[in-house]
Amino acid sequence: MEDSASLPGNALPVVVTTGEPAGIGPELTLMLASRGHLPANSVAIGDPDMLRQRAAALGLNVTVVECSTGECPRGGNVLPVWPVTLTEPATPGVLNPGNADYVLSTLALAVDACQRGHAAAMVTAPLHKGVIIEGGHPGFTGHTEWLRDACGVDDVVMMLATDAALHAASPSWQGGSDLRVALVTTHLPLRNVADAITFDRVTRISRLLTADLQRQFGIAKPRIAVCGLNPHAGEDGHLGREELDIIIPALDALRAEGMDILGPLPADTLFTPRHLAGVDAVLAMYHDQGLAVLKYAGFGQAANITLGLPLVRTSVDHGTALDLAGKGLADPGSLKVAIALARRLAAQRLSVSE
Amino acid sequence: MEDSASLPGNALPVVVTTGEPAGIGPELTLMLASRGHLPANSVAIGDPDMLRQRAAALGLNVTVVECSTGECPRGGNVLPVWPVTLTEPATPGVLNPGNADYVLSTLALAVDACQRGHAAAMVTAPLHKGVIIEGGHPGFTGHTEWLRDACGVDDVVMMLATDAALHAASPSWQGGSDLRVALVTTHLPLRNVADAITFDRVTRISRLLTADLQRQFGIAKPRIAVCGLNPHAGEDGHLGREELDIIIPALDALRAEGMDILGPLPADTLFTPRHLAGVDAVLAMYHDQGLAVLKYAGFGQAANITLGLPLVRTSVDHGTALDLAGKGLADPGSLKVAIALARRLAAQRLSVSE
Repeated sequence: MEDSASLPGNALPVVVTTGEPAGIGPELTLMLASRGHLPANSVAIGDPDMLRQRAAALGLNVTVVECSTGECPRGGNVLPVWPVTLTEPATPGVLNPGNADYVLSTLALAVDACQRGHAAAMVTAPLHKGVIIEGGHPGFTGHTEWLRDACGVDDVVMMLATDAALHAASPSWQGGSDLRVALVTTHLPLRNVADAITFDRVTRISRLLTADLQRQFGIAKPRIAVCGLNPHAGEDGHLGREELDIIIPALDALRAEGMDILGPLPADTLFTPRHLAGVDAVLAMYHDQGLAVLKYAGFGQAANITLGLPLVRTSVDHGTALDLAGKGLADPGSLKVAIALARRLAAQRLSVSE
Repeated sequence: MEDSASLPGNALPVVVTTGEPAGIGPELTLMLASRGHLPANSVAIGDPDMLRQRAAALGLNVTVVECSTGECPRGGNVLPVWPVTLTEPATPGVLNPGNADYVLSTLALAVDACQRGHAAAMVTAPLHKGVIIEGGHPGFTGHTEWLRDACGVDDVVMMLATDAALHAASPSWQGGSDLRVALVTTHLPLRNVADAITFDRVTRISRLLTADLQRQFGIAKPRIAVCGLNPHAGEDGHLGREELDIIIPALDALRAEGMDILGPLPADTLFTPRHLAGVDAVLAMYHDQGLAVLKYAGFGQAANITLGLPLVRTSVDHGTALDLAGKGLADPGSLKVAIALARRLAAQRLSVSE
């Protein structure tokens, strides 16, 4: 295996875990390769035979080539693959808990490669939480939390960005559909959200968001607009007290540290030009409060970024779409955006650390 | 007072309650009048002297003329006003609980006029819940619920629509920013939302939404897309059980009645072209789940419609904006949209009932 020290940073591959083998992840990766939309020096991680079978079934003109770190072919319609072997055969649309460990192994390989300096960044196609749980991992709650534990960090932040926000000349909102939304809580049942909003959590997540907007996005002093938890941000306590008791004191503490924080603002008026102007990221208190508007703005072409990790990780903004799997009908747009973003973030991180 | 039977339906005025006198409602109404953007046969309800003072302070060229039903002047920069006298003087930006009864009296006059056939519809500028409560009405939770009680109906539905959705040639979503979003719950603290989602409530609200899309919007068989309560619509129970236990059975019951219902769908993917195509309205489970995306899509120019009332009522999509009041800086766009919508709905209702 080639020593990472001898590889210039920009020569390191971006690795793409192809995700749940019954879902659309494998075919999205193959579709990008067949269309020439996979950037040079991208490498997939998955079962090579499964990928070949899927390509053949869909009539995709892709040559799947197994390779190892530093030895991967490029060009044409070649899809280089770091191989991980399926435990059991995979059928599109049919979940099999027997392949849960296969899915997690693809992630472990990607993390290991990033941490050893053999990959510049990792991009994840969707997995299916339920089948991972059924496959012997009852505590599994998603990619983001698994990566947090695998990397040994205390906190991560889930942030989504629209394609427009990735390419905007200026990082802050200036109109249109460029938008970045980070979440204080992620995959919690709605009835558990209010109790999860604590002074400690709001301040930790906000600091981490600010730090990674500086480190990964190169924004010197990020301006963050924060949603309230309740409708109308609680309307002075008439619609809930969490703003008065928790969020406002937390944001005041962050301002005292020098952070540029707006809010808490009512979530339903925050996403309008008056409030978004000049904002670098919105911090929503929970999943649907922030992501419905982000995905509407992104027209289904947004990417997910995990902040707070010692590596660059991006992801698609959608699920396994079992109903579409194996049909070649799914849209690889978000995967394309996620790969482009991973490359940009990896380059940005290099330029900051140099 | 002229007998309503002698007035042709389209000659009836749309009445605009000017709302909290310390907020932006009075000046928004005056701004529309001064710009010639108030449709003919619109009538404001409020304190005429307060409106004159506000116009003078802002240098708005408007002649405020007191009048009564059927005798209102039109044309030029005249703003006809059905008078209700302030209890105490009103200062922009400074709430005074002493005027709570004044605000409610403007609403009562509008409801009475609609019910007696002296007005075609009512449009409400924003009020401030907190000051109404402090002013001696501890149970007050908002315009919508007050109107429900004033009209003696059991249920109402809060729906917002973007300007584009009001003018679209076809009622169903065909791309762009035309969007209608109705809510199962409205102004509840977030921690109370999950317990408010019941089989009974979901079915009643869905029936009422369907009926009023037919009656008020003229859509023969409305297609409604329903959000789940939890992130990813609960992901098969892994992120909450309300979908499995309540929402799916409720929607199945509605389909058995012949309604065209999609879902429950994850709120963060529902608002994308794949799911919105052909949808007449989205039903969200709670306030911020649906309204953040609607107001983003509407660019702050949406209108609020109360379904289920025996009268037509629309409203602005924003609050009193006390920080902007008295400065002439607020945008009357939403009020303009709300008035236009009220006129359209009143005409539609007439054509259905004729």
